[in-house]
Amino acid sequence: MKILVTGFDPFGDDKINPAIEAVKGLPDQIAGAEIVKVEIPTVFGDCATVVHDAIVREKPDYVLNIGQAGGRFALTPERVAINFDDGRIADNKGYQPIATPIHEDGQNAYFTQLPVKAMVKAIREAGLPALVSTTAGTFVCNHIMYQVQYMIDKEFHDLKAGFMHIPFLPEQVVARPETPSLSLADDVKGITAAITAIVEMDGKPDLQSVEGHIA
Amino acid sequence: MKILVTGFDPFGDDKINPAIEAVKGLPDQIAGAEIVKVEIPTVFGDCATVVHDAIVREKPDYVLNIGQAGGRFALTPERVAINFDDGRIADNKGYQPIATPIHEDGQNAYFTQLPVKAMVKAIREAGLPALVSTTAGTFVCNHIMYQVQYMIDKEFHDLKAGFMHIPFLPEQVVARPETPSLSLADDVKGITAAITAIVEMDGKPDLQSVEGHIA
Amino acid sequence: MKILVTGFDPFGDDKINPAIEAVKGLPDQIAGAEIVKVEIPTVFGDCATVVHDAIVREKPDYVLNIGQAGGRFALTPERVAINFDDGRIADNKGYQPIATPIHEDGQNAYFTQLPVKAMVKAIREAGLPALVSTTAGTFVCNHIMYQVQYMIDKEFHDLKAGFMHIPFLPEQVVARPETPSLSLADDVKGITAAITAIVEMDGKPDLQSVEGHIA
Amino acid sequence: MKILVTGFDPFGDDKINPAIEAVKGLPDQIAGAEIVKVEIPTVFGDCATVVHDAIVREKPDYVLNIGQAGGRFALTPERVAINFDDGRIADNKGYQPIATPIHEDGQNAYFTQLPVKAMVKAIREAGLPALVSTTAGTFVCNHIMYQVQYMIDKEFHDLKAGFMHIPFLPEQVVARPETPSLSLADDVKGITAAITAIVEMDGKPDLQSVEGHIA
Repeated sequence: MKILVTGFDPFGDDKINPAIEAVKGLPDQIAGAEIVKVEIPTVFGDCATVVHDAIVREKPDYVLNIGQAGGRFALTPERVAINFDDGRIADNKGYQPIATPIHEDGQNAYFTQLPVKAMVKAIREAGLPALVSTTAGTFVCNHIMYQVQYMIDKEFHDLKAGFMHIPFLPEQVVARPETPSLSLADDVKGITAAITAIVEMDGKPDLQSVEGHIA
Repeated sequence: MKILVTGFDPFGDDKINPAIEAVKGLPDQIAGAEIVKVEIPTVFGDCATVVHDAIVREKPDYVLNIGQAGGRFALTPERVAINFDDGRIADNKGYQPIATPIHEDGQNAYFTQLPVKAMVKAIREAGLPALVSTTAGTFVCNHIMYQVQYMIDKEFHDLKAGFMHIPFLPEQVVARPETPSLSLADDVKGITAAITAIVEMDGKPDLQSVEGHIA
Repeated sequence: MKILVTGFDPFGDDKINPAIEAVKGLPDQIAGAEIVKVEIPTVFGDCATVVHDAIVREKPDYVLNIGQAGGRFALTPERVAINFDDGRIADNKGYQPIATPIHEDGQNAYFTQLPVKAMVKAIREAGLPALVSTTAGTFVCNHIMYQVQYMIDKEFHDLKAGFMHIPFLPEQVVARPETPSLSLADDVKGITAAITAIVEMDGKPDLQSVEGHIA
Repeated sequence: MKILVTGFDPFGDDKINPAIEAVKGLPDQIAGAEIVKVEIPTVFGDCATVVHDAIVREKPDYVLNIGQAGGRFALTPERVAINFDDGRIADNKGYQPIATPIHEDGQNAYFTQLPVKAMVKAIREAGLPALVSTTAGTFVCNHIMYQVQYMIDKEFHDLKAGFMHIPFLPEQVVARPETPSLSLADDVKGITAAITAIVEMDGKPDLQSVEGHIA
């Protein structure tokens, strides 16, 4: 089995992005699966091009995109991506879409094929906080998750894909009081646990555990 | 113009639900529009039946469903509803769906027809905190928002609809330390401001303001 | 019985201070006690002069100073004031003390004479969140609480005094996302409940309820 | 120079306490100072006996007590200890004091002799979040900080001492959603940085930096 794992480069006021740092720190094999690591730009559109090229080149069984979610306390696999770009800030090329669909001919939303409940269980068993999330926001993180699902819909029908957000690093919250963080070592441990769950659940339905949200 | 506004009854450990209390407190006319108020049960399926009956009976131009979002700090109009029920607790009839689609023949998600950016602007101008949300959760709030959109898709093509979450009341956080709340009077004021925006923006596109989320 | 209640004027970036607004909104009598209301400046030293003059003039049985605690979720009577000024910002006259004792001949700290546990119980029974706090910070709020205790120590031996913090108003958090607030009406209701508890507990020891903090 | 560093054993519902785990992980020398590590019980009174014995035996120049502050985001050196025990839960011997002075003949409060502003600066330079705190709570953490200061007041006049709180470990927040944590490795790194600041500031006044709190 081959798993393509991507991480975004730094954006906004931050000089570092835990996503790409954690991806770089992953081993080359997890639970017997080959891990292919790719850095992608924090740029609407361009990030999808890079992932598309990597899928064509590597022919992975799974794609897992990793992104930073400043303010979150836990590792959060995403349930769903929506057909909607709405930038709070501009991307790394200066583009800031406002309330724009990603693809006119795409579904309103796509659900991940990843076993997100098994992933949060595995991360917790590794001693780290995890929650299933039902929003990936409206910036590049939701964008790349949606774009890969759109590729599955239109082109790579057998591919399975999803997204996981990770918190700020401790060094990023030095000047952001009362903001949660998680260490890079724990990011690597948590992503490894999540990928192990993906490999072990391959071909099986996700767990039927209670992970819902009131709101 | 006629606007149907609904509120859920209490659920879980709470004896009161700010949603129905606030709806009851609305005036019968807002910005010239007639306001029809309906209480709906915190029950998957049943809540949709009650709203469907009210739409048939009242023939409203808009439907605005109101629900409680414990833990949120602000009034939060919702951008999108997903085709997904996943109960963290059972509903008021004891039913707790796990990772179930709401309608097999529905879209994966529906976007609201309401001008959510204009609504948050109006709420803020009334002196209250507001944010556009991109997740209504996976309990009855997302369920009713999705169900009404499904009715629009299949039956009431000219109807416009959406959902707004409101925080706990102060009395609900007496035994929940470090949890935000908003008073009933402010809920009524905020919903009134949001409905005023709906009326004033009728027939116009939503504002192009910056309200996106990184995650 | 006569109770002197003070509130600070606005400071920092805020055009309004819930403290003085809430104090102005109190009735002139609470539980049979006469309420004397005084606005005090957000200025180290000067605020104490104004309170001292009011004590001499009014001869109150109790002093209750009210101040804003941005970021807190509840009404929080303070347990203790420390002999320590340390400004995060300058006061309204531009003075910003750094790690300075308030009075060289004062105690390191003074405990309030108010029944803070009875006060939080009364506020909760009024349907509002309340917690006993063990820090009034290091700005003018702790300063005035300490100054009045110092006056009791040195001059007004029979006076009883204390301080209560109240959250931001909703209008103050419109541009401060994820920040809790409480309405002005609820501030008035909560302070009234707290003063009622002060009157009813006069001459009695405070409740022996569990209100401690791990940290 | 010799520095006695203590950590509490687990209490309440937790099977692990980051305080003693982090203390055990410290090197035996930091910035040239000898580090003596002592585990102390989460028991009012007893913890002070253990520290007193260690001071008599080891004759340290400094005492730094470390304790867990569940819910805090940062490493937080404490400014002040108050003469006040008020248990939210019982200690590990089942004793739960309510609003009791620690020593009838002690000061109302004692300020630390540690350079807390230099300590937070050093921790931040190590890439970790840090804030000066002005409350150590009312449980055993404030108790031991007060007790050691009382020993300085009455017996060990040349000793310098203080307390630092550290957040939950990630494994402690797996079942506590929306609660911040810090890894054990980062606790060790942060405490090491703080102790380095203590050694380097020995004999000098603390930094005059801006670290105050409004409330």
